[in-house]
Amino acid sequence: MPELRKDPVTGRWVIIASDRARPSDFLRAPVVAKAKTGCPFCAGHEDQTPPEILSYRDGADQWNLRVVPNKFPALRVEGVLDRSGEGLYDKMSGIGAHEVIIECPEHKVSLAQLPEKRVEDLFWAFRDRIQDLKRDTRLRYMLLFKNHGEAAGASLEHSHSQLIALPVVPVQVQEEIDGGRRYFEFKERCVYCDMLRQETSSSIRAILETEEILVLAPYAARFPFETWVVPRAHNSHFETAHASLIQNLAWAVRATIRKLERVLEFPSYNFLIHTAPVQEGPLEHYHWHLEIIPRLTKVAGFEWGAGFYINPTPPEEAAQFLRDAGL
Amino acid sequence: MPELRKDPVTGRWVIIASDRARPSDFLRAPVVAKAKTGCPFCAGHEDQTPPEILSYRDGADQWNLRVVPNKFPALRVEGVLDRSGEGLYDKMSGIGAHEVIIECPEHKVSLAQLPEKRVEDLFWAFRDRIQDLKRDTRLRYMLLFKNHGEAAGASLEHSHSQLIALPVVPVQVQEEIDGGRRYFEFKERCVYCDMLRQETSSSIRAILETEEILVLAPYAARFPFETWVVPRAHNSHFETAHASLIQNLAWAVRATIRKLERVLEFPSYNFLIHTAPVQEGPLEHYHWHLEIIPRLTKVAGFEWGAGFYINPTPPEEAAQFLRDAGL
Repeated sequence: MPELRKDPVTGRWVIIASDRARPSDFLRAPVVAKAKTGCPFCAGHEDQTPPEILSYRDGADQWNLRVVPNKFPALRVEGVLDRSGEGLYDKMSGIGAHEVIIECPEHKVSLAQLPEKRVEDLFWAFRDRIQDLKRDTRLRYMLLFKNHGEAAGASLEHSHSQLIALPVVPVQVQEEIDGGRRYFEFKERCVYCDMLRQETSSSIRAILETEEILVLAPYAARFPFETWVVPRAHNSHFETAHASLIQNLAWAVRATIRKLERVLEFPSYNFLIHTAPVQEGPLEHYHWHLEIIPRLTKVAGFEWGAGFYINPTPPEEAAQFLRDAGL
Repeated sequence: MPELRKDPVTGRWVIIASDRARPSDFLRAPVVAKAKTGCPFCAGHEDQTPPEILSYRDGADQWNLRVVPNKFPALRVEGVLDRSGEGLYDKMSGIGAHEVIIECPEHKVSLAQLPEKRVEDLFWAFRDRIQDLKRDTRLRYMLLFKNHGEAAGASLEHSHSQLIALPVVPVQVQEEIDGGRRYFEFKERCVYCDMLRQETSSSIRAILETEEILVLAPYAARFPFETWVVPRAHNSHFETAHASLIQNLAWAVRATIRKLERVLEFPSYNFLIHTAPVQEGPLEHYHWHLEIIPRLTKVAGFEWGAGFYINPTPPEEAAQFLRDAGL
């Protein structure tokens, strides 16, 4: 019998189907390197990107990581944040920033192929860029994300991530913050902290853990093999993460992606950091985390239009597959 | 310069990019008939579906439309609606219904190829099935939708739609209802009625109209060529639509899909009726409508994870293309 499960933060209901799709049931389009020549993100082609914003070099001549503006930015920092109406409607000018983090000088396709230190660099770069951009107080939210593979929307295969700085807070994040607030008002506890306690003690949905991180399959997972990487200590803002947490995070994300690549044969995936709006102070009721969503199924009209999902893989089974896979 | 626009109902912000993608910029995968043999929805293959729930026959032997249970239902009506907890979490048994509306006996692929009368039948079938299913008061919401083409999640090409009856209200609909209520509390007017007034008087986003229907490109469209079909008269519940409105609706939806097929060369699309929860009385602050979303672009990590969209086609331009296309 299928089961309806409620996300404890947002209140979103999900159908967890009982037909129990196994990893081999999903369409496979393994993400592997195709075009090694002419890649604008490879070392030696630095002139093919807009001018560098940041790079990490380890003292050597060769960079390890570069941050550049997106060549086709969705938003720009130049200009005035002009709010206006159009009858009933509201608009504002498209002020913001859109940056690309090139994660390695060689033509590697997967973040999981990089040494741990390079993955740490990625999270340091996210942190550094937020710290810099948030000084522009028009920018209220920073989206940190990765599109990996064509099915996940990546247009270049060279391993990279993106940052979009926005003058507004995205609805899905706002819903989590509002849901966290409702829970806090009722319980005087953070809902994510409660989730961590329950998932640590039961461990049926736990995938891996470090001293500072728990990786889990969420109870009301919307997608097969949806995976959350959650810091154990309460903190609403990613950009305040200290060095040992960044180290734990990098290890956990890399290990989780290796497991996903093993079990699902190099799937396309997206990951996204959900964090509090940058101009707000610390929030007792919100807890930053990273969500990884493998792109294994087509999302149909039903899901799209309603924000209501059918997940053919119970998260307990996904967690078991991922736990059993080696690092 | 890109522009940020706010959906007046949900408060969701969208980036309307200024690079102005034209219809020819989108990936094309025209939806055309492939497999005519062995289709379980064709006349003569009635034994390949579960037993019929409803059919329309016009007095003739041959059916024009059939409603059957989904062979792989996401939810079932049998059983008890059992709500329970699991520590922090909430779940309920997967009570509901999942039905398929087969729109024609011949192997037609597009709803727009059917005679007007057949399209009316589809909306009558939606109405009849809601009226029947809502007597089961455990069922709170009815999702009426169509997945057209592989990219939109259709697994069979024979023209069909679906109904899913749920014991919960999907979040996206709930957000619209909540947003409509906030607007009503402030203005004492329905936000959709206000939108209709503005779009009728300005007509830059209007696509076509009948006496009872306005078809428009929404101001804060999330997707290129997103199109809404909105009844002019205020009404929260689709299932109360009278005969002339059903006739207007069928004509308008068919004409809109013909236009989309002309401009976008037979795209995959989803449509979905957004209507009020069936067990509620009439709502002053909600207004049912139908949303059509052509599937022209891959949705990337950014959109998924944040509920924040970048739309490369300004709705005013999409409306112009669709207005200019013949019926």
